[in-house]
Amino acid sequence: MKINIPEVHLPRVVIVGCGFGGLELAKSLFDAPVQVVLIDKNNYHTFQPLLYQVSTSGLEADSIVYPIRKIFKGHKNFHFRWGEVLRINAEQKNIETSIGICNYDYLVVATGTTTNFFGIDGLAEKSMPMKSVVEALNLRSLILQNFEKALLVQSTEERDALMTFVVVGGGPTGVELTGALCELKKHVLPNDYPELDFRKMRVILIESGDRLLSMMNDDNRARSVRYLHELGAEVWLNVRVTKYDGHLITTASGKTITAANLIWAAGVKGQMIEGLNPEIVTPTKRYMVDEANRIKGYENVFAIGDMAYMVTDKYLKGHPQVAPVAIQQGHNLAKNIRHLLKGEQTKAFDYFDKGSMATIGRNRAVVEVGKISFGGFFGWATWLLVHLMSIVGFRNRVVTLFNWLWNYVSYDRNIRLIIRPFHRSGEDAKA
Amino acid sequence: MKINIPEVHLPRVVIVGCGFGGLELAKSLFDAPVQVVLIDKNNYHTFQPLLYQVSTSGLEADSIVYPIRKIFKGHKNFHFRWGEVLRINAEQKNIETSIGICNYDYLVVATGTTTNFFGIDGLAEKSMPMKSVVEALNLRSLILQNFEKALLVQSTEERDALMTFVVVGGGPTGVELTGALCELKKHVLPNDYPELDFRKMRVILIESGDRLLSMMNDDNRARSVRYLHELGAEVWLNVRVTKYDGHLITTASGKTITAANLIWAAGVKGQMIEGLNPEIVTPTKRYMVDEANRIKGYENVFAIGDMAYMVTDKYLKGHPQVAPVAIQQGHNLAKNIRHLLKGEQTKAFDYFDKGSMATIGRNRAVVEVGKISFGGFFGWATWLLVHLMSIVGFRNRVVTLFNWLWNYVSYDRNIRLIIRPFHRSGEDAKA
Repeated sequence: MKINIPEVHLPRVVIVGCGFGGLELAKSLFDAPVQVVLIDKNNYHTFQPLLYQVSTSGLEADSIVYPIRKIFKGHKNFHFRWGEVLRINAEQKNIETSIGICNYDYLVVATGTTTNFFGIDGLAEKSMPMKSVVEALNLRSLILQNFEKALLVQSTEERDALMTFVVVGGGPTGVELTGALCELKKHVLPNDYPELDFRKMRVILIESGDRLLSMMNDDNRARSVRYLHELGAEVWLNVRVTKYDGHLITTASGKTITAANLIWAAGVKGQMIEGLNPEIVTPTKRYMVDEANRIKGYENVFAIGDMAYMVTDKYLKGHPQVAPVAIQQGHNLAKNIRHLLKGEQTKAFDYFDKGSMATIGRNRAVVEVGKISFGGFFGWATWLLVHLMSIVGFRNRVVTLFNWLWNYVSYDRNIRLIIRPFHRSGEDAKA
Repeated sequence: MKINIPEVHLPRVVIVGCGFGGLELAKSLFDAPVQVVLIDKNNYHTFQPLLYQVSTSGLEADSIVYPIRKIFKGHKNFHFRWGEVLRINAEQKNIETSIGICNYDYLVVATGTTTNFFGIDGLAEKSMPMKSVVEALNLRSLILQNFEKALLVQSTEERDALMTFVVVGGGPTGVELTGALCELKKHVLPNDYPELDFRKMRVILIESGDRLLSMMNDDNRARSVRYLHELGAEVWLNVRVTKYDGHLITTASGKTITAANLIWAAGVKGQMIEGLNPEIVTPTKRYMVDEANRIKGYENVFAIGDMAYMVTDKYLKGHPQVAPVAIQQGHNLAKNIRHLLKGEQTKAFDYFDKGSMATIGRNRAVVEVGKISFGGFFGWATWLLVHLMSIVGFRNRVVTLFNWLWNYVSYDRNIRLIIRPFHRSGEDAKA
């Protein structure tokens, strides 16, 4: 059955996913002569870079997500539908979704990525991913639940495991989360659990490569390790996790560690949709696209953002999977759709790299813009400002800013709530 | 096994539940020569009077709840434990909980109430209660999910049912929720769903008695009905719901109505704990207590707040189940525990009724203080101020105030998010 969408005499652009890329594309088409149908499995846009602050009780989930319908308000030919896309039928120019079939003239896959566990034994079942709001909230619950449990157990070993946090993945997410966990240890949790010995709480960042923040220069990489050490984290480089049973982490070298908390931020894979030629899908499930983001071998099917694997002279192994690429590709594709409508040539995508940054804690961040790099308080303030201005919605910005000021002044994190306790599937809810 | 709690040479007061009563009692014991153990199934205190604003996308859940551990910060002999109490063994002076056994010298049951469906056919399975944060969030999801669904269905009947909201219960919760739903209809949802005809959206308040807000005087009762009518609600008095199958609501008179949303706010019952003499439990599961809140027939077991059924000359049918009673009983019991510790006489509880209020919408509320009653903008402003000052925590107050200002100025509700979709048990998640 077809999804109930008004039929108008305009070409229909169907966008799958309202992340950074899909959102920018839709907004850039507001005054174009097209009908836009945006489908997402959530009714909100998520500001993913701040998920780690939701996990660590620093920000409300509700202030880093934004209702999609509010963005489309007043735009007549824009239709949002809440559903999941199951299959692309390129020959029939339609998609199958959980809510029915939808025709398209132009289809854009902007589904982003999900966690890649690389098939490592036990990870999918026992580790905590952090790619969605629900996952971030589950992590928030688990962290607090494990401290509540730590109060109750009699065995020192078990207590130590409950207080051990292993973050795997030395990219920005892993580094930022590690820093935030250290701040919980330093400023927040000892007040909540005076009966526990917080010298026993360990925060360990594991990275399989030989460096953290590999996209940064040597200065910033050194800085980030120094900051993490200052905050009390252990940084293990060249360590590869090979197994996790919910308790024991095994690594390639044979070294093991016991931890009730393993947060996996060490890889992503595209949220691919069935139906397209498998030969144009990369091993990490990205679609190979040309320089106009057109999926190779298809006329009117595009992919943008993390899902798009575009090789150019400058990016021989594809673009980095970061928000600015997605946003710029969304913007460029909107222009190209206008060109196509007029029968004009498309314009190749050219990524303008504004730099990168990661925050590690209070007054500690690393920032890189072109050849300039800096850290410390100035880096941290830059990080705050850039992120604050990137959050969608004025209300969200005000609430976030207030929370940050509050957390900064009070050294506190107020949202340490177990609203929906997290239970690993297969575990006894009352265990 | 015993719960791991430090043993000190102080009498132990165990409080079950950190609602208004339990919280006030604990705080009033801060400097008393006792060890306090507070057990709650949540790690936060909930400001229940604002749950309806969470359900209707006006406030973040996180800003009306407060972490219990933060309240106890710095108080050495105060111990919070996250768990559920299963049984009272009064003879052994201990309780059995989901996390172990706990001895007490004084036990206080402050567990509050939960929704009472009165065994009405289908209600427990198909209607939405709204007594906890999770229930309020489920309702928020369901409201939005049903509008998303309404866009998709082909049948007018089905669409109308999805857009019909029936609130049962003419107390403050029912009245306030009805008003908030009307405001969603008036100001928010038509922007989100321009494809739907909002004249078809119905908000109906059903009350089995002959009046709304029965604790108020005639003036305010008339005002509240007028306000609800002005906002577009239907008010059905003297109507008793006898059955709900998730679709059709049947009433005692035989009149039926089709609605996909039935919110049940028509009754509560105590969250009783097993183990005490059943003869001192009332039909709505409250414990009969003496004027010092001592449960009848027990030496050192008390009940306060909604759980306590105390008959006095002024309150022949017990006190109203409202926050001020719970708070004042918590405060009085703290004093009485001090008296008991010194071997002194306890002091009878004397309720000071400060009045009551309910908000119905923008600039519309009814307030009653002694013989004075008023409504309109002044009533509404009073309501806002009183509730704002009652929320625990400065951060929560600021975020709530900002949200209210924002909602007032923008006529918007920004938090219309389906973060965890709600599925009635037994229904297909993808239906």
